[in-house]
Order: sequence, then structure tokens, then C-alpha cells
Amino acid sequence: MPTVSERGRIMPDSPIRKLAPLAHEAKERGVKVFHLNIGQPDLPTPPEALAAIRSIDRKILEYTPSEGILSFRQKLEKYYHKFDIDVTADDIIVTSGGSEAVTFAFMSCLDPGDEIIVPEPAYANYEAFAIVAGAKIKSIAGNIEEGFVLPPIEEFEKLITPKTKGIMICNPNNPTGYLYTQQEMNAIRDLVKKYDLYLFSDEVYREFCYTGAPYISAFHLEGIEQNVVLVDSVSKRYSECGLRIGALITKNQEVKKNVIKFCQARLSPPLIGQIAAEASLDADPQYMLDNYNEYVQRRKFLIDGLNRIDGVYSPIPMGAFYTVARLPVDNADKFCAWLLSDFQYEGQTVFLAPASGFYTGSDKGQDEVRIAYVLNKTDLGVCLKILAEALKVYPGRKERKGAV
Amino acid sequence: MPTVSERGRIMPDSPIRKLAPLAHEAKERGVKVFHLNIGQPDLPTPPEALAAIRSIDRKILEYTPSEGILSFRQKLEKYYHKFDIDVTADDIIVTSGGSEAVTFAFMSCLDPGDEIIVPEPAYANYEAFAIVAGAKIKSIAGNIEEGFVLPPIEEFEKLITPKTKGIMICNPNNPTGYLYTQQEMNAIRDLVKKYDLYLFSDEVYREFCYTGAPYISAFHLEGIEQNVVLVDSVSKRYSECGLRIGALITKNQEVKKNVIKFCQARLSPPLIGQIAAEASLDADPQYMLDNYNEYVQRRKFLIDGLNRIDGVYSPIPMGAFYTVARLPVDNADKFCAWLLSDFQYEGQTVFLAPASGFYTGSDKGQDEVRIAYVLNKTDLGVCLKILAEALKVYPGRKERKGAV
Repeated sequence: MPTVSERGRIMPDSPIRKLAPLAHEAKERGVKVFHLNIGQPDLPTPPEALAAIRSIDRKILEYTPSEGILSFRQKLEKYYHKFDIDVTADDIIVTSGGSEAVTFAFMSCLDPGDEIIVPEPAYANYEAFAIVAGAKIKSIAGNIEEGFVLPPIEEFEKLITPKTKGIMICNPNNPTGYLYTQQEMNAIRDLVKKYDLYLFSDEVYREFCYTGAPYISAFHLEGIEQNVVLVDSVSKRYSECGLRIGALITKNQEVKKNVIKFCQARLSPPLIGQIAAEASLDADPQYMLDNYNEYVQRRKFLIDGLNRIDGVYSPIPMGAFYTVARLPVDNADKFCAWLLSDFQYEGQTVFLAPASGFYTGSDKGQDEVRIAYVLNKTDLGVCLKILAEALKVYPGRKERKGAV
Repeated sequence: MPTVSERGRIMPDSPIRKLAPLAHEAKERGVKVFHLNIGQPDLPTPPEALAAIRSIDRKILEYTPSEGILSFRQKLEKYYHKFDIDVTADDIIVTSGGSEAVTFAFMSCLDPGDEIIVPEPAYANYEAFAIVAGAKIKSIAGNIEEGFVLPPIEEFEKLITPKTKGIMICNPNNPTGYLYTQQEMNAIRDLVKKYDLYLFSDEVYREFCYTGAPYISAFHLEGIEQNVVLVDSVSKRYSECGLRIGALITKNQEVKKNVIKFCQARLSPPLIGQIAAEASLDADPQYMLDNYNEYVQRRKFLIDGLNRIDGVYSPIPMGAFYTVARLPVDNADKFCAWLLSDFQYEGQTVFLAPASGFYTGSDKGQDEVRIAYVLNKTDLGVCLKILAEALKVYPGRKERKGAV
């Protein structure tokens, strides 16, 4: 048998999905498993999107332009203007999900051996997409004790080498729910400008900011307009993860030229997804508000509940629909596996994502988990009860000295 | 401004799409442009697929499993069995189009610097996907005079180095329409076995074989079951290019493990596309037969017509819906551009794909074009007339000595 690629071998298993076989086995045993491990919202897709799909009256489901359907891109332009993101339809390239946008951004800007700096915990697949591009992620770990604020910019600067080509951020953040402040974004901007770096900015959770603090887009930062590559997706904001529609947005013509080549090679993003996503942009404002309010309530309910469990600590996330919480356990990987394979409370258990997979450059987060609040409050209440009961009997329970 | 990637810079422009701006300008001038440049069939998508889309009654458009929806993969298993392709649902991984299948195949099997051998003219994007993977294509040019038969296997063997990891074929072939014989496939099998290579086999046109000669799948070849990575797509066979649904099929567990990692990183293939593609597998046999018969007639009509034009030669394609034809011109790139920018016949012109882009390793094909018979016979008749008139007045007309 011919050997497989080393690149495939070093690809990390998804921290979100690697325990899925254990969850499957639990279900086979008749245990109900609550999924808080994955960012799959339970909220409805906009009726406008579903109606658009149901009323498709084409005879042929053709390729769309490689860069996406023009009318969709024009509507996205207007959408971004609402957030004071000054881009035109020409700057917007439609991709197969935010995943493809990150991949094409790295492919177009980075060569094998190039480095990017990523504050962590970070969305685990950035590492995977960097491996795809042959690039290297240098990470700087944040702290749960400090609520996952941006690590000091001097820490970033220390990591800069001749190979450093960019910084990647996610704002509001997955997995922490942190929202970068104006001051933090300005510090990033200054560093990007000083070293002429790319700023890859994943802003797919912009609709979900809960504290009144402003959402600062990378495109709001003056003087680095040519350095910004913004990643977007309709998956989370309209609860339509299955459409696989995202976007890569850049004003840099050279980057755009490269990205278009990768787009042309894969021919077209999904047609039906674009039609549905375009219709979603006309979603009733009440729909958006209802979903927003639902997340606001879940957030309060979940975080209050977590912090009431003995030995558990979660900072208050400012955006997105995740939190990273610290548990009184020896090892969160073991604990999450144990929850699925050895534990049940009244025939139920909970699937959490160990946070270790979100820290690629350090051994931090060994006692942390990511929790996605993608279930309703009733279910979240059950999950909190399950977690509390589990922590009482988990054999690897471990108190942390000086815990917050 | 930070520099863009070298990888992006060396990505070839699509030979199929690079003249699109000239076509756009022609249309702006009021010229009707017939598109024979692109493999976008004009035939209808199966009504079963459209009905499945219109009757979607989900409230949330969720991620599907990263490897694709199980019921779809199970139905694909049965589909392949009809062609004596002995695979199980476990061997089938659903991808975002055949494009992603080729990309993941290369990513999973090849490391930067690895080489694959490709008989050409070949589908241009194999080169693009090889660049994405950092791999190198070594090509062996076939000849229009010999009807694009497989070049002698000794030519392949001569190119084998320690870096050679595989052979990539497309059967039936895009762009030539050639269908490999049992003897040719056996020769490939023996070479694959001798050097323990991967055989990447793109078989998306299997439904379109016109001569009664058998379609030989790579999976029909005994003794190399672990070496085969088959690429498939529903785009062409059901005229649903816009769905972006393909498949990667392998019995090699190590390859599969790598591919799944790449699948998990991009989360999910398109949900709606999978639902429609699954429904397409139930398409009325009469639908498939009607489309087949339509291509049979167009093929005869087009090839007869081409060979009646003075100085034009096309072999008779045995499958797919393309032919590579030789024209009495100095340079087909120039001629195709001239057709769009300087020529019209009764307010109409034709968009052909210069064949040079399908030959990446040689300067062959300078006077060849790829023609897709994706228009009805009436339109094909007009196209033939336009081409004949164009060749009468094209300033770069050039007769070839000893033309067939």
C-alpha cells in the first residue's frame, strides 16, 4: 500500500467531534445525550430562507459564478454597510462556508513555512486550515482568570519572525465568547501596520454581542484596509449551518486575484445555499431579535448555573454562544469521555468539548471545557444538573488551589 | 502591503473561464454568445431532485455528518453496485463537488514535492488541485492523430521517480471524450501494482459512453483495490452542477482516515445538495435514457459537422460530452479570443475553450480547442455555421501540412 500524506497524519482530530463515537455508544445503550459540544444552533432558520428553497422554479441547477451570485453579493454589501463595514460587492467573494473562506485566505496569502500568530484558545480548525496551507500557527494563550482578554500585544511582537505573515483573530470569539475592545483592536492594528502583516478576522458571530460594548470589525481599523481579510458565514447568524455559505472579504486586489483562482478551480459555491442565504438577508428583524433575546437569556441562565456548581468557574462571555468553563477535574478530556462512557443521571448525560483542542500551542486548558448554549433553557437546566451530579462522583475530581 | 502567496501566483487561470471577460464585452455590444466552452449541460435536472428541494419541511438547516448523510451514502452504494463497483457506504465519503474530492484525495495521499503522472490533455483543474497540495504533475501528452489513446505505458514508466506517488486518469475523459480500453486499464493496473502507486480515477462521466465499448472503473481492476481513490460527482450525470455534491471513494482505511480529518475540518458538505442528489438516484430511467440519447445525437451532429468544415478535424469521442478538435489556425488561444472580440456572424459568435490549458506539460494543442456539446442541435448547427464563417476570414488562418 502506498503511504498516506504526512500532512494528513499531523492534521488534528476535531476536538468537537473526536468523542462522537462515545456519544454514539451511549445512545446505543439508551442514554439520552445532550449536545453542548457543537455550534449547531437549535433555533429556526428564517422562514424567508425556507420559503426561497421551497419556491425554486428552475429547471436546471446550474453552476453559479465562481465568486458567487451577483445579487447576493450586492445584498451582502448593504448588510455590511449596516455595520459600518465599507465594502463593495466587488470585495465580497462567496465561499462554501466560512471554512472555505479561511482556507482560501491562508492559501492565497501564505506559503509553506509562513507563520501566523493566533491568540488562543482558538477555533480548532484554524490549525487544520494552516496545515492544509503548509503554514505554521504560533499561539499565545489567554487566561480564564483574566476572562480571556487579548494577551499583551508585546507577547505577539515577541513571536514575530521574518516568516510571520499575519495575525488571525475571531471576534466575537469562538470558543471563549470574548469581544475585543477598541483598545485591543487598536493594539492589533498598530502591530499589523508596523510589520505589514495580514489581519485575518473571523467575524461570523457579529450579530451576537450582549453587553452593549461595540463590535469592532477589522474593517473599522484605519490604515490597514489592504491588510484585512475578513471571514464570514451565514451558518450561525441564520441557523443555517447546512447551507455551507460563507464569504471572504478583502479590498486587497492582489489577494482577491489569488482567491478568485482558487474559487475558479472549485468552480462554484452551492447554488441553493446562495439563494437561501440571499433570502435570509431579508429576514424579519423580529426573527433576529427573538434569536438574540433567546441567546441573552440562555447565556445568563447557563453562566449563573455553572458558577453555582461547586468548583466550577465560567467567565461571562460577551458574545457568540459559547463559554469556556473551568471544572474541578484532573483532566477535561478524560472527564468528557467519562461523561459519555461511564456516567448517566436518570438515563441522561451531556456531551462537552474538552478545551485542550482549542489550545494548540500550550498545555493550558487541561481542566477547561467549551460549552455551546445551543439548547433551550429547560434542557440547559437538565444539563447543569447532570454536570453537577457528575462532578460529585467523578473519580478524577480535583480542586484547584486559589480557584476564582 | 504584505506579499501574496507564491502558490496563488503560480495557480493557472482557468482555460475555460479566462476568456469570460471578452465574452462579457461581446454581450455588452449586443452580440449573442453561444457557450461551448464550459461543461454546464442545458439538459434538465431530474424532477425528483427539484421536487425533493421544493418539499423540504425542516425548520433548521443543520450540518450533516462530515462524511455525508448515511441514507445518501447507502443509496450511492447501490448505485455503484449497478456498475459492478464493489464498495460499501463506509467506503463512500460525500464531498462538495468532485473538485473537493480531488483536493482531499491529493491532500490525503500526497505531500509537498510528491509527483503524480497524468496523461494529457487533462482536466485543467487537476493542476490547480496539485498546486493546492504542493504536489507536482508530470504529464504525458496524447495525440489527436491517434484519437487520444492512452500513451504507451512505457512513457509513464520513464517518468517514475522516488517521488512518484500516483497516476491520475479521467475516464471517460474530459476534455477528449476518450474511453480507456480494457487493455489500457490493465496496463495502468500493472504499473500501479509494480510501483505501488495510487490510482486517482475521475469517473464522473460514466453514464455517458456511446460506442458500446465497456466502461472500466478503476475498481474493476483486480489486485489494486487498496490503491484506488475514485472521484465522482452528481453534477454532470443529473445536470445539477450547482448542488456541489461529489464523492471520494476508497477502500484504503489509512487514506479514509486522512480524508475524514479534512472533511471534519470543513464540517459538512451541503445539506440541500445531498437531499437533492439522493432523490436524483431515484430518477426515472426514462429521464436518464432521454438525456443519453440527446447526447448521442448531438455528438454525431457536432462531430460530423466539424469534420465537414474545411481544415477542421475532430476524432469521434466515445464518452462524456466534449471533443477536442483541431482548427486551421495559428494559435487557438488567439482564435478563441478573436471570436469573442473581433468576430460576429449575423450578430452571433461562439465561445470555445482553447486546448492549450489542458496541456500543462507540453506546447501541444496550440491549434486545438475543447468543445462541449451542451447545447441543443439547432444551436449546435448555428455554432458550426459561425465557426465555418469565422475560419474563412480569421487573419491567422493556417493550414496544417499532412492534416488528417
